[in-house]
Amino acid sequence: MNLLLLESSEIGTDQVATVEGPRARHLRLVLRATIGRPVRIGIVDGPTGTGTVLTLDDERATLQCVFEAAPPAIPAVDLLLALPRPKVLQRLWAQIAALGVGRILLTNAERVERNYFDTHVLDPVVYRPLLIEGLQQARDTRVPVVSIHRQFRILVEDELDGLCPQSTRLMADPEPYATEVTAAPPRPPGAAAPATADVSARTLLAVGPEGGWNDFERRLLEVRGFRRVSLGARALRSDTACIALLTLASAGVWTGRPDCPS
Amino acid sequence: MNLLLLESSEIGTDQVATVEGPRARHLRLVLRATIGRPVRIGIVDGPTGTGTVLTLDDERATLQCVFEAAPPAIPAVDLLLALPRPKVLQRLWAQIAALGVGRILLTNAERVERNYFDTHVLDPVVYRPLLIEGLQQARDTRVPVVSIHRQFRILVEDELDGLCPQSTRLMADPEPYATEVTAAPPRPPGAAAPATADVSARTLLAVGPEGGWNDFERRLLEVRGFRRVSLGARALRSDTACIALLTLASAGVWTGRPDCPS
Repeated sequence: MNLLLLESSEIGTDQVATVEGPRARHLRLVLRATIGRPVRIGIVDGPTGTGTVLTLDDERATLQCVFEAAPPAIPAVDLLLALPRPKVLQRLWAQIAALGVGRILLTNAERVERNYFDTHVLDPVVYRPLLIEGLQQARDTRVPVVSIHRQFRILVEDELDGLCPQSTRLMADPEPYATEVTAAPPRPPGAAAPATADVSARTLLAVGPEGGWNDFERRLLEVRGFRRVSLGARALRSDTACIALLTLASAGVWTGRPDCPS
Repeated sequence: MNLLLLESSEIGTDQVATVEGPRARHLRLVLRATIGRPVRIGIVDGPTGTGTVLTLDDERATLQCVFEAAPPAIPAVDLLLALPRPKVLQRLWAQIAALGVGRILLTNAERVERNYFDTHVLDPVVYRPLLIEGLQQARDTRVPVVSIHRQFRILVEDELDGLCPQSTRLMADPEPYATEVTAAPPRPPGAAAPATADVSARTLLAVGPEGGWNDFERRLLEVRGFRRVSLGARALRSDTACIALLTLASAGVWTGRPDCPS
């Protein structure tokens, strides 16, 4: 935990936060917080800041808080993810939040098993603490907005433009062998980045199910402006693939965004 | 499993491979292989090919094999990794092999706990099946060469030039806040890729321990030609960071290699 994320309800009008139970113990035993020492803090969906430990025992800690003026920016990538098997999704929640996405849209697809939708891993009571864990790891406060869509076609045709307007749309498919992958032509050496490159622009990355999108889904995504991208010839486990794809999308590798990591 | 990886000892002079036990069951029950149907196969560190099922029962399968002329290329990235905690390394073996590396050099560092070296996860009997699992996922045959180095300084000063000659050397550090990160200047828009870009060139990526390299280690790596790279401001869990860093290194994001994924 690189940042202690507080709910605004935990902070009094005097800017003193009270933290109880396992989080107080974590502060003391893992982060080795001591009275008078500053701790990096944040408010869920609010600004980050510094908390100075006022009192600390096994069950309770109080912190005097000072916050930045503005919350951090919302991560520039949204993820449209065909619902993975529950065990994989359980592993992914914290990692997706740590990598940073604005929205997570979980969708049905032909190759998604219907009973995946019945899992407790889709219950906010289960996944919200995992998202918070990822944010505390990454020192972010912006909880990804999660939505669950049982009808792929309605999502893509009717809802997506409203949920993710004006995004560069990318479609990753784990089955490069199933059909020909038509990649955008590579930028010729010496050519400048596309004129549309814009730091404020958002990217919407669609990641298919383990067996890949079917032809209908692939065509529907293409018709709605999704350009195919790929990790190359290596087939990765769906959680590894999701992390790798989010990393490349966030780095602007496919969109020419100028914030490619140094 | 997207490829059945065979040891050369499993293949007879008649090019008939015999597969027994759990792998025969996996062929039948998971891959739904049937007699006469082709299965994608490979020889450990050898070529890939196709195996046509000759016989198949619960305990044993035989396959008539045809192989490509040459084995696949060795992945262009080598990984110098400060030994992670055993639980993390256990999770990482298959994922590193699936992402593709030529070598995995596991090293000591100040912030690596000494008892990590005593783990069974460093036993080839434990990790080799995990590497094979990752290769079968990624349809590769090249088993990463693993070496374990208990003395960081001797590794970096005396052994590295021999083990990984002529590589572009990159150093990732999980603590961007600890010291100033001096990145190589970004390529100006419109500038061509560096003249040294060469598909055959190798990259050696050094990934630090959870707490980061210490100043001595960082300086030693810099003196030996490692350029600092970073994932940006987000701090990731060490396994997520390792996957993200390998993805970006393999994509040539930091080296201008022309095989950036489309």
